[in-house]
Amino acid sequence: MAMQKAPQAFPRPEYLRRLSAVRAEMERREADVLVVTSPANITYLTGYTSKSAYVPQGLIVSLKEEEPTFFTRRMDAPAAKHQMFIDSSRVIGYPENLIANPDMDGFDAIIDFLHDRALAGGGVGLEAKSISAQSVDKFKARMPQATIVDFANGVHWIRGIKSDLEIALMREAAANADAGMARAKEVIRPGVREADAAAEIIAALLRGADGKPSTDLSGFFLCASPRSATAHIRWSEDVFRQGSQINLEFAGVRHGYTSALMRTMSIGKPSDRLRRVHEGEVAGLEAALAAVKPGAVCGDVAAAFNSTMKKHGLEKESRCGYAIGIDWTEPTASLKEGDRTVLKPNMTFHLMLGNWIDDDFGYVISETFRVTESGAEAFSKLPRIMFEI
Amino acid sequence: MAMQKAPQAFPRPEYLRRLSAVRAEMERREADVLVVTSPANITYLTGYTSKSAYVPQGLIVSLKEEEPTFFTRRMDAPAAKHQMFIDSSRVIGYPENLIANPDMDGFDAIIDFLHDRALAGGGVGLEAKSISAQSVDKFKARMPQATIVDFANGVHWIRGIKSDLEIALMREAAANADAGMARAKEVIRPGVREADAAAEIIAALLRGADGKPSTDLSGFFLCASPRSATAHIRWSEDVFRQGSQINLEFAGVRHGYTSALMRTMSIGKPSDRLRRVHEGEVAGLEAALAAVKPGAVCGDVAAAFNSTMKKHGLEKESRCGYAIGIDWTEPTASLKEGDRTVLKPNMTFHLMLGNWIDDDFGYVISETFRVTESGAEAFSKLPRIMFEI
Repeated sequence: MAMQKAPQAFPRPEYLRRLSAVRAEMERREADVLVVTSPANITYLTGYTSKSAYVPQGLIVSLKEEEPTFFTRRMDAPAAKHQMFIDSSRVIGYPENLIANPDMDGFDAIIDFLHDRALAGGGVGLEAKSISAQSVDKFKARMPQATIVDFANGVHWIRGIKSDLEIALMREAAANADAGMARAKEVIRPGVREADAAAEIIAALLRGADGKPSTDLSGFFLCASPRSATAHIRWSEDVFRQGSQINLEFAGVRHGYTSALMRTMSIGKPSDRLRRVHEGEVAGLEAALAAVKPGAVCGDVAAAFNSTMKKHGLEKESRCGYAIGIDWTEPTASLKEGDRTVLKPNMTFHLMLGNWIDDDFGYVISETFRVTESGAEAFSKLPRIMFEI
Repeated sequence: MAMQKAPQAFPRPEYLRRLSAVRAEMERREADVLVVTSPANITYLTGYTSKSAYVPQGLIVSLKEEEPTFFTRRMDAPAAKHQMFIDSSRVIGYPENLIANPDMDGFDAIIDFLHDRALAGGGVGLEAKSISAQSVDKFKARMPQATIVDFANGVHWIRGIKSDLEIALMREAAANADAGMARAKEVIRPGVREADAAAEIIAALLRGADGKPSTDLSGFFLCASPRSATAHIRWSEDVFRQGSQINLEFAGVRHGYTSALMRTMSIGKPSDRLRRVHEGEVAGLEAALAAVKPGAVCGDVAAAFNSTMKKHGLEKESRCGYAIGIDWTEPTASLKEGDRTVLKPNMTFHLMLGNWIDDDFGYVISETFRVTESGAEAFSKLPRIMFEI
């Protein structure tokens, strides 16, 4: 029996529109065919979210065909037939003798296909950052007639402006993140083990809100005293104590689309230092959001944040945010001074004000927002407070 | 105040022993210095499990120094000082102007360091598979006097034979996986949403067993009817039904060490086909474990599995397992016919009998085991049954 199609996150015309934009970029870069290897870009162009990127895979977009062709390991092909909007005949599972084989891998199957389709002699776009040096070398060596075009972040930039359908998923994801933070406020108590609190918060994130569960778990970080200076520790085996500060960063996820959220909690009265930093950061956050409008550039938003922080006697060394969408960070626009990316409606950013100030103190707050016709819409409904427990 | 050290997963001599083995391999490969970039290898050599590999980082092992030096983003340095066994002065946070900068990144800071230490003119080992083609090119271009040595899986192979301390962590991780599977059996019921069951199972995995929580969540897959042919879908928004088959794959994790576990469940009586496959696979599993002993090779284990399956009229296309340890799969030994890796005590494998047979049917069962002095020790205490709900 043929694998049935999953309910699709988007209608077919949405995917075809995205593919048309990619083909226009291919023409600009003189690539007749593009091998998409970034997992988030594959999700964007097909709806596929199954986790098969542990082995070589590639989505092959040709200038001449409406639907792309996907190569993955044979055992992962059924999930691709199930989830991708394309015809199942366009999902090709390569055989098991290409796994854990020192001489050949899945990219050889893709190169064979390009030769078979007479596509190995023209411009061949590769996402070179997503694959190893050896793999890039293999494409060059096995297709000596081709002109290899590094597609760099070409597809990532196309993803930058979301459709209203994508925005709707990011709002749902944000509601799930809010549910996680609400649960955190309930379960973080003196004597509770950090791992047990993480278990409860993650369960709430996954159950989600409004009947829309999270479809994945993305990055999750619970950095509590005496580790508030750390940014990316999952959790520890320690227990919370009276006076503990807890920095939380996590996200809701809907069909790949991620809305991130950070808040700081304090068990008992926060220290004066913590309160002063919180006040400055919230003022900076509000100033940054007020600077968002179509036509402004990313650097303007960062400048509004930085100058407000300075008034409060604070500074943040790292950029104050970045483009966000499928699988969290998009490696394109940064909210930092000097970034000249022009803001347009439905660009989405994580205004990420985590500030790891020295070796024993850090503070976090953030908002995931979209650019509207006149300003910014933050997706979270949570207040911008430091939660006192 | 200096960042305090976390409780260490291993004593200092354990790390020094591992580093000595790496230095011996460096001498064999004629590398005076090695830049370790694989996150699991960095965990192995330092105890670091914080999630900072989203930006360039490298652990620099020199033939001349007992302790390595770690370069990471400035905001991630406190976590490294906290978790790594090395002196905090050996953790170097590179500045924020190397983030989201098209011209320079963290690898430039590492290359500068190698020049400063007069290490850029000899043999420089790189784990080329873990970094992009552009990054390898940068090392070559900025160190024209160096002989770049691709270290390939050199460190991964050293990780293959575990110490008793590592085995103890893998047993703890297996107990956590067992707790997750026990919870799955309780919560999977007709009418329950897959995402809600996943939330409960993951929470149980994280809480763990015997007072030892999981320190991370690793791969988690719940592939239920009509998706039992899929291997790597997280879960769906669908509900379980009477007659549903549920294929589960997940792991407990302790300080990076992962014990994976797969079991199939059936709501109500399984079909004859499912029962026949289950019986053949369990017989194959027992035959494979019986073939494990020091001096046998990986291919012997696979042959025992395959011949037993054949007697049951079954076959499995993919390899029947692989080396496992930190962060799940080790890209070294495979349990497949033709693999001549000789089994030695305290090698650990995931005997992974997931069998995605056609587009509408798959079955899973697995054991994580170690090679003992005379045979195999499976870490899970679960029976090798198909759970009927």
